[in-house]
Amino acid sequence: MMAAKGPKGRSGGRAFARLDFSRTARTGFGETVFGPGKTPEQMVAIFKAFASRRTPVLATRVTPEQARAVADAGLRADYFPAGRLLAASGRRGRGAAARLKGRVAVLTGGTADIPVAEECAGTVEFFGGTADRYFDVGVAGLHRLLSVIDEVRKADVVVAVAGMEGALPSVVSGLVSAPVVAVPTSVGYGAGAGGVAAALAMLNSCAEGVSVVNIDNGFGAAVVASRMLRRLKA
Amino acid sequence: MMAAKGPKGRSGGRAFARLDFSRTARTGFGETVFGPGKTPEQMVAIFKAFASRRTPVLATRVTPEQARAVADAGLRADYFPAGRLLAASGRRGRGAAARLKGRVAVLTGGTADIPVAEECAGTVEFFGGTADRYFDVGVAGLHRLLSVIDEVRKADVVVAVAGMEGALPSVVSGLVSAPVVAVPTSVGYGAGAGGVAAALAMLNSCAEGVSVVNIDNGFGAAVVASRMLRRLKA
Amino acid sequence: MMAAKGPKGRSGGRAFARLDFSRTARTGFGETVFGPGKTPEQMVAIFKAFASRRTPVLATRVTPEQARAVADAGLRADYFPAGRLLAASGRRGRGAAARLKGRVAVLTGGTADIPVAEECAGTVEFFGGTADRYFDVGVAGLHRLLSVIDEVRKADVVVAVAGMEGALPSVVSGLVSAPVVAVPTSVGYGAGAGGVAAALAMLNSCAEGVSVVNIDNGFGAAVVASRMLRRLKA
Amino acid sequence: MMAAKGPKGRSGGRAFARLDFSRTARTGFGETVFGPGKTPEQMVAIFKAFASRRTPVLATRVTPEQARAVADAGLRADYFPAGRLLAASGRRGRGAAARLKGRVAVLTGGTADIPVAEECAGTVEFFGGTADRYFDVGVAGLHRLLSVIDEVRKADVVVAVAGMEGALPSVVSGLVSAPVVAVPTSVGYGAGAGGVAAALAMLNSCAEGVSVVNIDNGFGAAVVASRMLRRLKA
Amino acid sequence: MMAAKGPKGRSGGRAFARLDFSRTARTGFGETVFGPGKTPEQMVAIFKAFASRRTPVLATRVTPEQARAVADAGLRADYFPAGRLLAASGRRGRGAAARLKGRVAVLTGGTADIPVAEECAGTVEFFGGTADRYFDVGVAGLHRLLSVIDEVRKADVVVAVAGMEGALPSVVSGLVSAPVVAVPTSVGYGAGAGGVAAALAMLNSCAEGVSVVNIDNGFGAAVVASRMLRRLKA
Amino acid sequence: MMAAKGPKGRSGGRAFARLDFSRTARTGFGETVFGPGKTPEQMVAIFKAFASRRTPVLATRVTPEQARAVADAGLRADYFPAGRLLAASGRRGRGAAARLKGRVAVLTGGTADIPVAEECAGTVEFFGGTADRYFDVGVAGLHRLLSVIDEVRKADVVVAVAGMEGALPSVVSGLVSAPVVAVPTSVGYGAGAGGVAAALAMLNSCAEGVSVVNIDNGFGAAVVASRMLRRLKA
Amino acid sequence: MMAAKGPKGRSGGRAFARLDFSRTARTGFGETVFGPGKTPEQMVAIFKAFASRRTPVLATRVTPEQARAVADAGLRADYFPAGRLLAASGRRGRGAAARLKGRVAVLTGGTADIPVAEECAGTVEFFGGTADRYFDVGVAGLHRLLSVIDEVRKADVVVAVAGMEGALPSVVSGLVSAPVVAVPTSVGYGAGAGGVAAALAMLNSCAEGVSVVNIDNGFGAAVVASRMLRRLKA
Amino acid sequence: MMAAKGPKGRSGGRAFARLDFSRTARTGFGETVFGPGKTPEQMVAIFKAFASRRTPVLATRVTPEQARAVADAGLRADYFPAGRLLAASGRRGRGAAARLKGRVAVLTGGTADIPVAEECAGTVEFFGGTADRYFDVGVAGLHRLLSVIDEVRKADVVVAVAGMEGALPSVVSGLVSAPVVAVPTSVGYGAGAGGVAAALAMLNSCAEGVSVVNIDNGFGAAVVASRMLRRLKA
Repeated sequence: MMAAKGPKGRSGGRAFARLDFSRTARTGFGETVFGPGKTPEQMVAIFKAFASRRTPVLATRVTPEQARAVADAGLRADYFPAGRLLAASGRRGRGAAARLKGRVAVLTGGTADIPVAEECAGTVEFFGGTADRYFDVGVAGLHRLLSVIDEVRKADVVVAVAGMEGALPSVVSGLVSAPVVAVPTSVGYGAGAGGVAAALAMLNSCAEGVSVVNIDNGFGAAVVASRMLRRLKA
Repeated sequence: MMAAKGPKGRSGGRAFARLDFSRTARTGFGETVFGPGKTPEQMVAIFKAFASRRTPVLATRVTPEQARAVADAGLRADYFPAGRLLAASGRRGRGAAARLKGRVAVLTGGTADIPVAEECAGTVEFFGGTADRYFDVGVAGLHRLLSVIDEVRKADVVVAVAGMEGALPSVVSGLVSAPVVAVPTSVGYGAGAGGVAAALAMLNSCAEGVSVVNIDNGFGAAVVASRMLRRLKA
Repeated sequence: MMAAKGPKGRSGGRAFARLDFSRTARTGFGETVFGPGKTPEQMVAIFKAFASRRTPVLATRVTPEQARAVADAGLRADYFPAGRLLAASGRRGRGAAARLKGRVAVLTGGTADIPVAEECAGTVEFFGGTADRYFDVGVAGLHRLLSVIDEVRKADVVVAVAGMEGALPSVVSGLVSAPVVAVPTSVGYGAGAGGVAAALAMLNSCAEGVSVVNIDNGFGAAVVASRMLRRLKA
Repeated sequence: MMAAKGPKGRSGGRAFARLDFSRTARTGFGETVFGPGKTPEQMVAIFKAFASRRTPVLATRVTPEQARAVADAGLRADYFPAGRLLAASGRRGRGAAARLKGRVAVLTGGTADIPVAEECAGTVEFFGGTADRYFDVGVAGLHRLLSVIDEVRKADVVVAVAGMEGALPSVVSGLVSAPVVAVPTSVGYGAGAGGVAAALAMLNSCAEGVSVVNIDNGFGAAVVASRMLRRLKA
Repeated sequence: MMAAKGPKGRSGGRAFARLDFSRTARTGFGETVFGPGKTPEQMVAIFKAFASRRTPVLATRVTPEQARAVADAGLRADYFPAGRLLAASGRRGRGAAARLKGRVAVLTGGTADIPVAEECAGTVEFFGGTADRYFDVGVAGLHRLLSVIDEVRKADVVVAVAGMEGALPSVVSGLVSAPVVAVPTSVGYGAGAGGVAAALAMLNSCAEGVSVVNIDNGFGAAVVASRMLRRLKA
Repeated sequence: MMAAKGPKGRSGGRAFARLDFSRTARTGFGETVFGPGKTPEQMVAIFKAFASRRTPVLATRVTPEQARAVADAGLRADYFPAGRLLAASGRRGRGAAARLKGRVAVLTGGTADIPVAEECAGTVEFFGGTADRYFDVGVAGLHRLLSVIDEVRKADVVVAVAGMEGALPSVVSGLVSAPVVAVPTSVGYGAGAGGVAAALAMLNSCAEGVSVVNIDNGFGAAVVASRMLRRLKA
Repeated sequence: MMAAKGPKGRSGGRAFARLDFSRTARTGFGETVFGPGKTPEQMVAIFKAFASRRTPVLATRVTPEQARAVADAGLRADYFPAGRLLAASGRRGRGAAARLKGRVAVLTGGTADIPVAEECAGTVEFFGGTADRYFDVGVAGLHRLLSVIDEVRKADVVVAVAGMEGALPSVVSGLVSAPVVAVPTSVGYGAGAGGVAAALAMLNSCAEGVSVVNIDNGFGAAVVASRMLRRLKA
Repeated sequence: MMAAKGPKGRSGGRAFARLDFSRTARTGFGETVFGPGKTPEQMVAIFKAFASRRTPVLATRVTPEQARAVADAGLRADYFPAGRLLAASGRRGRGAAARLKGRVAVLTGGTADIPVAEECAGTVEFFGGTADRYFDVGVAGLHRLLSVIDEVRKADVVVAVAGMEGALPSVVSGLVSAPVVAVPTSVGYGAGAGGVAAALAMLNSCAEGVSVVNIDNGFGAAVVASRMLRRLKA
């Protein structure tokens, strides 16, 4: 537990996070940290702690400011702005005990869904998996999806990321035999804005084989997909 | 205005409906009556009133009991149970001043959506239009839709009826150039039940050219489509 | 597909949009682009790509900054700030294969609804149609609507734009025989704010002939109306 | 307080209602009782208690069974089934200390709203006021409202009862100078069913001078209107 | 109709508002204008137009910037920042054809509700009425309400303004015989935030005699109350 | 674990409940069982199992049919229909290891809230506590509450049960110094029906010292209150 | 497509379902049918059609009446009432091309969740998989879960079924390394009733590795789990 | 009542708060003030008023600017930024008539919940109680909670603070015998964001003994807990 540098009041001395340095050993996947709400200094402190242990760590929803602070502190970490990810390798490489077998196909309905999809794909890669990206293949122009569907069918898990009416997972799931993890995004406006319409649509999918994570939760979909891939090793 | 046969209280003598016997002449479409909440006796009275004027009338959401009462009263009216419609022709035939040009394609996602679709198709036909039915062509099995899409493309208006995630209008609208009237249905359960998920999805359609009527409102879609068809004559 | 100039991370090199340069030829209507979320540079790149192909394009929800960037880049495009539209003509003029017959009447309840109505009217015009504007004719002062209704009755499609209680489409639809496309706006506050009250009211319209698009979706109403007008040519 | 005849458990001996026999003297209006949930026996007991004191009482939402039980018990009470009201006069007549000056106009959008409107009108009359009924004058057929508006303008308070999109109060309030009490009804279905769409629309009315009571609360509107009328005496 | 000074696009030349200069003569109350969304220049233009006709006007939700712009333009108008109102008198004084008889009592639950209450009280005064203020008399400290209730009982209309659980109108209505107009405010946070909890509570009031306006709509309550007061003259 | 007598399918032999016979010893409170969904036979089996161990048990939301079945089986259990409770004592009496010190005051706003309040009071008594009942003391008639408040102030915990606008806990909490457990009830209709308005109001209480349990959850309030009382022994 | 035996109206001759007899061959899993809304006669017709092709079929949410009708028609099918499933084997046994490797652990929070869990487990078994049941291990009595967790850890997929606050998947996912499919159930009442609270909680799980299907959708979870298991063969 | 220094309009001279200087004497607890919406000058005025009476006061949700203004004014007050509290002691010390017996255990699910938990703990301490902090012990890593549960069991009241799925109170309540006050926090995003998912989950807790305060209302939980502790003295 890291001591916070915050105010010295009665409640001072509280840590801002309990970090788990032995997570890779215990669960097979490296520790991950949620970026929002953390100051650049806190982010630096976290990456420093992992670096000193030569343990991998992944931060999500990282702002350019947070990433720059970590770089300025001389810490080695790769920033993937498309997915808002900041990743530091450990002694044995990326954030996984072993490479994952199989492939994850990550699809988006539109271009505005890409940040969420990149968060997913990048996290799968941090965990030692392989992610294939198929972006902007939404159902309003079906030819786009049909032109890549043969490739998508080869994946062991499909992650379908979509906002607005959230129809992509339903259509995809009818065309593949792998499980489909649906990620509603907050893309859209008006009635059902903020991803609510998409989330409800995905939960109500008439297609079998679809399960859903929270709105914009590309990271969550990546963990589900990676847990699936890991069983392929057994 | 018809005098109600109800209770003889202080508010007695109120009519249960203001009927419009000159509607066809005025608007081009015959009068329509919403069935729910009306007693079989009230339904008989309504059909008797129109029959005496040899004016067409269409009742929607008609129960078998209501239909039987009208038949038992010796009134001539066709009952279409699949669409829960009861239609009486007038002096000059069905409920329209003139036959409508063009065609309406009525699609459903599943079989449970058919009653709503039949309410739509039957109403279009009452108004003098032509409705082609394409049922159970939902997006979870895309081949079903693709096998009929060339026929659907010939329609002047497409009505897409779907419950659950309500994705059908989005997919269809990307494949046709006609306007698409989306009808969410209350088919489905759980989160967003009662048609809410479908209605939100349809309002959020990423496909252009879609407008939406209320949940289960096959009749409403029929009026919109028929109003469109009527302009084709001009 | 255009290469993004974004970050050079692992996911770098992704395109920010799949543009469709042959849309006019294929669908009769020019390509349209949703402005929000695009940098001025991306907007310039898009308009440059269409200009080099002498193909029309319309951008919606365009900010003055985006419009200025396109103008500063020496690209020819008309900016309509009232409707937040930026339009570039192609080799054969505006964004449509042929002029549309018929007329669209665009009404608003109040003055705050005008930007949405102008988005609609301007888009119809980009697609080669004719839009007549009747603004600030809301139901709280009925004389305003009644004074223009004879003109509105001549339209082939009516688009009724309103926020708050969203009653305009119901009243209008009872007075005309054309289909009415209702556009709820986010004008209003308190219970049902953000257009929710208006959208629900419009879906529940007691008047026949009304269909609804998403909140503030003037563009969507324009496409529905234009698809209707196009059938008039047949 | 009346002892309940209910179960003889530990909590036995509780009263099912605290009745207020001096309400007319104190507030000017007679006591009222909400019918639902009361057994016919309880209803009889209540009317008996008031009869023995020769004090007026009004029960709302009364079923035919409850009304019949009171009649069978030989108690004098008028049943108005259209408004589901059961009223017993007191020593000095109806349920008010004095007749109310002025008039209440009670309007409905459709025929299905009439039970709520009759509950309102009948309650106003019980309180000694005058209620004029204008039913089925909804906004989808504006001529119906316009044909009675000159009469409505003479009222001191207008109660506008409507379901579905709930637009009637907005239109009416723009045409009169009296305060308008809006009563949303649960008439309608689909999105915003159960009166929610109407209630939200009424709260968001763009017309000045409208206040709203709960869905189907014709009684509540009557009390508001009667309180207004009573000030006219001062 | 005033010509807007906005952009000179195709839709240029639209007015930003239809002003009603003969409102006082027609309805007895002066014209009112909703401030939000109007530029300081537009506000100046509006007040100039009324000044030139020596006609009263009231603007609500006015920012200090808007008020200063009007003052800087040399126009005579009183700014009441507590109620965010800007009022200009006409030839015959304030915004009413005649002084209103009777009194309005305006109560608030807490101090945070005061801006809404002042909007109400100030508007009543602009319309020629008398408003008595009783602020911070919420139900959590009942003695505060009970200490002023005898004064409140003298009012002809009571306006009860409250956020959070919105219980004030219920408690007040049980203690007075005048009609109570309830104004929910957006004061509060968490579940039911933004005034939703208060609005629902007020619509569900177990106390008779309460009607409700939209959240934060102090102006709306003032119009309802003023319409009531005006009938007292008859 | 008791074997179910249900169908003999592949999943047959499942138990319908895991009963906890040593709960009193372990937690100080006896086992409780939720009645709904259980057949009369299952209820009998449960009470038989506890009787054979001479261990107390309380069932909630018990129907008369369930209670009669237990009585017909010759099992000793007290049925309190007002609170829908069925209680069997154990070897050492009621369902608690020891009598609880202190008192719980249980208040209701109206008479329709009494079943929930009796569920609470009866459960407290089963757990060995003392419950004082103050029913029908809602805020619309404040004198009712004020006439009992001195007694209520003596309680160690106050449970305030109310539907509709749910204002009772706020008013009470401002008048007492004990913690107030608020129980929203599903009494009411229209907007916020089913207890939603009351629950939101209670969570938003402007009065300090209020915490809330689920709608109609009289049992839950009793457990919270009893846990509080038990600390008084320490 | 099977011809319906329904009414002989204009819309007569429609089929009530498009059945897919080659599904096992194409997707590896047998065809499934949703029971609700089908008459016993329709259910018989469906099972007859599959029997004649010696093809497996599974019906879900089957009522005892439907099951009895199929049995009375002399068709061979196993009814599992605990999971409301009716299953008919095909030429090569159950509803799968091949047995699935690995195991699915199906957990429930309470006993009321069991029907949903049995629907899931039975469907997995129909598809050739192995399901281990751990029922009534909800988080309010943590020892129940901890006593079986070592067995649960051996599963390749965990399905966690829970109503009310829906906390089970979060707690379980922190204790296992397999993917967790969360099934909210409609068990519970009050605020967030009908499974809404559970569904929201599961989507918001703070534990990684959880994805969610619709409320009560045990079948959907089974398909997701079975698709996962099938990849284990590769 | 303090005179506001605000604008000198017609409504000028209103106080911005009614302060209660004798609260400690009357209720046993000192006065508290809600910080948001108050200017630094108003905060200074409040603390000055209490200082002059040597009476304790606690302000919640205090910004650093407000705290600094009070300090700059030379007033003695302790600022606890972790809990956003500003506390001034009175003549007889902190904000309570006497020290409270017993202990409150304050738990959080994650680190982001800490500000709400500190608001609770600090308020308990201001009221003279003892609060033990157990932070970041959420259910996704059960070992964290189990490692402190023996200590938690010693508390007389447990306050469980959690966002996202809000499962902590359910798990804790099954492990302790003290009453559990649940505080949902607005930590989380997507479906059920803003604390709604957590609040619903807590109201639906399957564990007995849980009651709930509003989202982020650490102060409210502290008052409930302190009222409980105070009874221990009796």
